[in-house]
Amino acid sequence: MQTLQVDTPSQPYPIHIGKGLLADFSLFAPHIGKKAAIVTNDTVAALYLDALTAMLRDNGVDTFAVVLEDGEVHKNHQSLGKIYDALLEHRADRQTAVLALGGGVVGDTAGFAAATYQRGVPLIQIPTTLLSQVDSSVGGKTAVNHPLGKNMIGAFYQPKAVIADLDTLNTLPPREFSAGMAEVIKYALLGDAAFLQQLETQMPQLMAKDADALAQTVAHCCRMKAEIVAQDETEQGVRAYLNLGHTFGHAIEAETGYGTWLHGEAVAAGMVLAAKLSQRLGYLHDDDVARVRRVLQAADLPVQAPDFPFERWLGHMRHDKKVQHGQMRFVTLSRLGQAQITTIDDEALLRDVIAAA
Amino acid sequence: MQTLQVDTPSQPYPIHIGKGLLADFSLFAPHIGKKAAIVTNDTVAALYLDALTAMLRDNGVDTFAVVLEDGEVHKNHQSLGKIYDALLEHRADRQTAVLALGGGVVGDTAGFAAATYQRGVPLIQIPTTLLSQVDSSVGGKTAVNHPLGKNMIGAFYQPKAVIADLDTLNTLPPREFSAGMAEVIKYALLGDAAFLQQLETQMPQLMAKDADALAQTVAHCCRMKAEIVAQDETEQGVRAYLNLGHTFGHAIEAETGYGTWLHGEAVAAGMVLAAKLSQRLGYLHDDDVARVRRVLQAADLPVQAPDFPFERWLGHMRHDKKVQHGQMRFVTLSRLGQAQITTIDDEALLRDVIAAA
Repeated sequence: MQTLQVDTPSQPYPIHIGKGLLADFSLFAPHIGKKAAIVTNDTVAALYLDALTAMLRDNGVDTFAVVLEDGEVHKNHQSLGKIYDALLEHRADRQTAVLALGGGVVGDTAGFAAATYQRGVPLIQIPTTLLSQVDSSVGGKTAVNHPLGKNMIGAFYQPKAVIADLDTLNTLPPREFSAGMAEVIKYALLGDAAFLQQLETQMPQLMAKDADALAQTVAHCCRMKAEIVAQDETEQGVRAYLNLGHTFGHAIEAETGYGTWLHGEAVAAGMVLAAKLSQRLGYLHDDDVARVRRVLQAADLPVQAPDFPFERWLGHMRHDKKVQHGQMRFVTLSRLGQAQITTIDDEALLRDVIAAA
Repeated sequence: MQTLQVDTPSQPYPIHIGKGLLADFSLFAPHIGKKAAIVTNDTVAALYLDALTAMLRDNGVDTFAVVLEDGEVHKNHQSLGKIYDALLEHRADRQTAVLALGGGVVGDTAGFAAATYQRGVPLIQIPTTLLSQVDSSVGGKTAVNHPLGKNMIGAFYQPKAVIADLDTLNTLPPREFSAGMAEVIKYALLGDAAFLQQLETQMPQLMAKDADALAQTVAHCCRMKAEIVAQDETEQGVRAYLNLGHTFGHAIEAETGYGTWLHGEAVAAGMVLAAKLSQRLGYLHDDDVARVRRVLQAADLPVQAPDFPFERWLGHMRHDKKVQHGQMRFVTLSRLGQAQITTIDDEALLRDVIAAA
């Protein structure tokens, strides 16, 4: 097992990464009282809920479960209400920990519930997908979607611990595993050219779920994100680089309906557009863009956005949280392995980039 | 005008107290961009919304209003949804300030919306009731009620500024003015015997809304609360003293239905019960309890809780946020002007205190 310590201005917390961690009570013990809520979804519940419940019960912790429906479309106020209702019905108090057992949807929704129930209760993130292990369980971002926009309602709230059990990746559907790999590739593109080269070499092993390669890769991404977040807890500066591909990606998700494209799939196609935009701005060469496509394709990811009118792209992108004083801001690449923020006023340029995709 | 600076671990902010402040753009300018949302209720909107909107428009700020229905029963998810919807429809971004124009319900609901919209946008509190000027607009507590409990969903979130215009107290109904005075008296009881004596002397002038006496009193309470909050931002220690009378008071509000008793009225009757509990525990004398009753009565406040079965009191009180590991904790008075926390296991004692009320 590897443990990283994440320092944030509000409180430090550990990220544990390894095999068999769901059975290790010593990782839970420092952060949990006599009662805990396990928030999960129906897919993950079928695989891991009974074992986790039994392990905690054997160590003297009473639990109750809130089982949400699986899928991004359920990252909403209805699911949030279901969690609040269960916490109140079980008379959860300020010491009752919330355990988020699942992927990003569970982590974000349960995290926001923990942030806001009685103005904040202890939160343990137990990410069970590659995406959430490398990305959404680290950094303290919690949120639910609103019918008019993704992640529009949320809070910055740090967990007490993140417990990333690599065994859970063995039950992950291939499409979701690839979607997680999109975020891994994102880390390489935005800040680490050597890591990009390593991914290009190791992608066959990673796609075959080689345990050592995975452990090393997940830990590397967590470390990169932890460093960025430690520098910038409330997303005013460098942390915005983590949104590489996301302005385009969110537009794809919004247009096709949340959950149709997986988040990582939309980000993959979005990163190709971000690379093309960077090329049009004179930062990247044509073969850099081709290299971005190739590494994404090696992870079985889509590199072509769906076709819909430019005005609808614009509508979605203008609505993005990264808009400041009405101006659209994009994460672009000054070279492969180095991100920057670019404000784009030229709609014609965006139209060309998207049309040529 | 008096200005207090409140230091908190997250960010310092000013509280401005005086007459005519709603017309003074210089107090708003440092915290506001080109667009702002004004959240208010129908009662306050009729009195102050047009003037505030015009003043801001004359200074180049476009506003849109979200007018909630007046009353504690509307401090809920429906009102919150109305604010989120308006922010999204008007394409509010992370720089769009939320101005909370009204009493505690508006301040708490709009404050929670500002804390959670896009994970936090600038908040300016403009309290228009005595209660919210001395209490709920200071300290960063935001929340909405849940059908199963008051203030159950919320966040700690600091405003950029508090603008307390004393002129707005002239339009406040007498019952609400008295309810605010309950919180003023609370400050005296929990931490300042000299202030209690001053209130006993000045109560006739205060009830007649003498401007100087009010300004001095509001500022004194804000200063006391600011000091307590600065010591203890997330309510682990001394800040709990601010809940004097609130465990009993919340039970009264929950039993009678939120909004039937005003919060301050329930706290007044709750403080009499807290004083009687303190007397039964051997801390206060009979004449101390009588003195608590007298000062509350001088402010036209109820000193007698409504009659309902003890089991229902217990049910409400066990559900209170101040319960820790299942034990009930009360703020009691070691003497008039000095609070403490007491854990009560003895239900018979509570039954006697409530029965004798």
